[in-house]
Amino acid sequence: MSAPIRVTVWNEFWHENPQHHAEIRSLLLNYGFSDERLKNATEGVQSIYPEGMHTVISAHLREQGFEVRTATQDEAEHGLTEDVLAETDVLTWWGHIAHDEVSDKIVQRVHERVNMGGMGLIALHSAHYSKIFRKLMGTSCMLKTREADEKERIWVVEQGHPIARGLPEYFEIPQTEMYGEPFDVPAPDTLVFVSWFQGGEIFRSGCCYHRGRGKVFYFRPGHETLPIYYQPEVLQVITNAVRWAAPSGGPELIFGDHPPLETLE
Amino acid sequence: MSAPIRVTVWNEFWHENPQHHAEIRSLLLNYGFSDERLKNATEGVQSIYPEGMHTVISAHLREQGFEVRTATQDEAEHGLTEDVLAETDVLTWWGHIAHDEVSDKIVQRVHERVNMGGMGLIALHSAHYSKIFRKLMGTSCMLKTREADEKERIWVVEQGHPIARGLPEYFEIPQTEMYGEPFDVPAPDTLVFVSWFQGGEIFRSGCCYHRGRGKVFYFRPGHETLPIYYQPEVLQVITNAVRWAAPSGGPELIFGDHPPLETLE
Amino acid sequence: MSAPIRVTVWNEFWHENPQHHAEIRSLLLNYGFSDERLKNATEGVQSIYPEGMHTVISAHLREQGFEVRTATQDEAEHGLTEDVLAETDVLTWWGHIAHDEVSDKIVQRVHERVNMGGMGLIALHSAHYSKIFRKLMGTSCMLKTREADEKERIWVVEQGHPIARGLPEYFEIPQTEMYGEPFDVPAPDTLVFVSWFQGGEIFRSGCCYHRGRGKVFYFRPGHETLPIYYQPEVLQVITNAVRWAAPSGGPELIFGDHPPLETLE
Amino acid sequence: MSAPIRVTVWNEFWHENPQHHAEIRSLLLNYGFSDERLKNATEGVQSIYPEGMHTVISAHLREQGFEVRTATQDEAEHGLTEDVLAETDVLTWWGHIAHDEVSDKIVQRVHERVNMGGMGLIALHSAHYSKIFRKLMGTSCMLKTREADEKERIWVVEQGHPIARGLPEYFEIPQTEMYGEPFDVPAPDTLVFVSWFQGGEIFRSGCCYHRGRGKVFYFRPGHETLPIYYQPEVLQVITNAVRWAAPSGGPELIFGDHPPLETLE
Repeated sequence: MSAPIRVTVWNEFWHENPQHHAEIRSLLLNYGFSDERLKNATEGVQSIYPEGMHTVISAHLREQGFEVRTATQDEAEHGLTEDVLAETDVLTWWGHIAHDEVSDKIVQRVHERVNMGGMGLIALHSAHYSKIFRKLMGTSCMLKTREADEKERIWVVEQGHPIARGLPEYFEIPQTEMYGEPFDVPAPDTLVFVSWFQGGEIFRSGCCYHRGRGKVFYFRPGHETLPIYYQPEVLQVITNAVRWAAPSGGPELIFGDHPPLETLE
Repeated sequence: MSAPIRVTVWNEFWHENPQHHAEIRSLLLNYGFSDERLKNATEGVQSIYPEGMHTVISAHLREQGFEVRTATQDEAEHGLTEDVLAETDVLTWWGHIAHDEVSDKIVQRVHERVNMGGMGLIALHSAHYSKIFRKLMGTSCMLKTREADEKERIWVVEQGHPIARGLPEYFEIPQTEMYGEPFDVPAPDTLVFVSWFQGGEIFRSGCCYHRGRGKVFYFRPGHETLPIYYQPEVLQVITNAVRWAAPSGGPELIFGDHPPLETLE
Repeated sequence: MSAPIRVTVWNEFWHENPQHHAEIRSLLLNYGFSDERLKNATEGVQSIYPEGMHTVISAHLREQGFEVRTATQDEAEHGLTEDVLAETDVLTWWGHIAHDEVSDKIVQRVHERVNMGGMGLIALHSAHYSKIFRKLMGTSCMLKTREADEKERIWVVEQGHPIARGLPEYFEIPQTEMYGEPFDVPAPDTLVFVSWFQGGEIFRSGCCYHRGRGKVFYFRPGHETLPIYYQPEVLQVITNAVRWAAPSGGPELIFGDHPPLETLE
Repeated sequence: MSAPIRVTVWNEFWHENPQHHAEIRSLLLNYGFSDERLKNATEGVQSIYPEGMHTVISAHLREQGFEVRTATQDEAEHGLTEDVLAETDVLTWWGHIAHDEVSDKIVQRVHERVNMGGMGLIALHSAHYSKIFRKLMGTSCMLKTREADEKERIWVVEQGHPIARGLPEYFEIPQTEMYGEPFDVPAPDTLVFVSWFQGGEIFRSGCCYHRGRGKVFYFRPGHETLPIYYQPEVLQVITNAVRWAAPSGGPELIFGDHPPLETLE
């Protein structure tokens, strides 16, 4: 209760980083992106988050009294060494364009730290398709998308859940990318938010999962081309989720051969 | 986060109270109880909890830093006035022999304080059949029973849940009353504990529910004729449950006529 | 598997019945209804369902091969005698203006037939506030509403569930009453549908619950002033729900004193 | 409703097959198995299931009216070609000693057929650690074990579930291998059975999951050295599970770019 929760804010950090812009452009050209969209996905993101999304999120979490560090994909071992993970209570994850570049070995390490160690994981927005989230879910984790800068209204549907702390009954993201159902994840242990989109879709936007000793929260908002991680309600949710996902201090998982606790005649 | 959680420890307080012993004897005679069982259910309980179970539980919770008061069934309005409930974050409930004597009006009041107000409710042992728990569940809440002072082993099955904090993978109640399945409750939102009984039964012993803005936890141990509420693991669970069940500060429930948030052509 | 499922289609049958129109008008006047809305809620409903909604729903279910009878609130014991319930596998329930006129004794009887007997219950639209549904849920079952004949789009979110059989990924109700969150029910065991409304709200529109031996399905569509129960997708869902909610033939609930199954030394 | 459900009963088929006995012996020697256990795990299994477990299970399912084929690990593509899977509604899976020998490509194929295609998967006993089950769960799927031929009592805890059809409130496996908690799987969407073991453990023995369009059921009983798949209650559960897991005919999963359904101004 007393020691501050230790958060590692992880970011792919490609969209905001000019060193990756050429690569991003060439990747997105394959999807037939227009010049404007290519620019949005590179210089556009950089102008909103000049030092990376992780810097904005981590600054906010520090203000909340958490002990915060950041890590990015380009660092050695993606910044997620054994030591860093051992000192991390909750890991927030943002990735998008370079999911496949994340090392399977590190994914396995993070998985174990969640499942066996009890570290919390908060998957943000496009992290729905990160290797670590897909591995923890067991489904395709795919969904519908549309980039039209339309309105999203996020409704609380489990008002007693700690992740709804301090929120109004709904809040709006004035301009966002749409994510629509089917969102191919297992039904969450607790569904906290459902989104309404202007274009006619709905989405399960706040999903809680227990996985072994760990807790996982998926939170939808956060498209990189829009200043969503500056929005107070979004930051409030991330703060709440960090508190909820922190290790609970429950028993370790003990597997394997087990002598009888009662006499077997 | 800063103000202490305010707990009201509610107790029927009949078994431990000599003023009710004649009544209890006459009630239990209808069930064909032997002299020994009649004595156990009256003087027996009193000798274990001379000042009532609520005193033992509340003393422990006070040590944990909660702001604790007690209330008992014989008090006016069962000690659960509007004012008391308004100042209660979590209500723990123990009742057994006199469920039917609890006023429907007070039950309605507690229900509203949970559902609309977000107060937590922790139903202990025989409170499975209390009016308030049955009203919150919507099922019969009946189960199997046996008084044979046999062993119970309580296994944690959701290791990442805050109610499992500080516990080993299982703990034992050396002598207890058996509760067996079917336990006619809705499948819990989260199942935290499952009990093994020496006589061959199992039981879902730790069950979490969201109900509106409130949270409800059912915890099985606590038979009145045995010193179960002195056992450290049992007290640890109650402490954990108080923390979990405290109001989360989510949005109020707003019902009724709602003007459109978007233009309807 | 072989005998047809026996369905009782229950209807309040006031809105469609001229004998109740004066009463409805006087009730709704208290809510400040305009002349037009008063007319809609009486003659309007009658013109859409001249012989009552139950006739339309039951005709469809009969075509599906079920053995169907109807029952209405004005009948003796609301048409739900012990004999009728004993021969009912699934009960569908539509009520709105006269929930309070339903006898508590009959509600208790239906509850027992669901919980102990395994009968399925399908609560339609405004039956969210029926006594039987509220009793089974344990919460207030209130919600937001708006009558603006706006569009609803119902999205399937659990594609593998039998209640989604034969449906497209979403279907629309061109004109309907809005129901919005908070929908104060326990999180469903399975959430099958989520609705999008033109005016900006979302709603958990298809909710499955186990209650004892019985199964309960809440299905949102069905406003009385619009011809919604003629819509093929709506009827398909009701058909699917009948199949899902039919008794499963699982074990009876056996409660009370239980001798040990293993030797207790 | 009319065409019979098409079941493929898959079996590793090593323990029952003398061609694999030398390999099994050398593998189990690494675990320090005694001569007696080595013999049990080879000739012992073979004597119980001379033509393989799949033959016993498939014969029973054929009697129930399903259209049944079998497939085993040694066959090309493990007998799970694209064609076989395309004609399979429900796949039952038993594996133990050779999980690692199953091709990742085939695992991916089965996963897709479940998740996207809606095929049911029934994981039996030691299939808890099969690649396909672990991939679908997202957790370690490990557990406690003990081979002491002790008694298991399987209690129904969701009496209204179709997988409990025709069962008593509990049934016993007179001699079995123990599996104990923690069973590191996500909390099931529906928990149908909980086991009591003579040696003092409990286990979540019947676990239902939705994964995309498909349904997954884990069922614990079935240790290879004991004649468990001849026991009527065990076969009844597998039959029930096949019916429950068969494809529901819900909508296909449509992902990716999605044009707006409503006008975006």
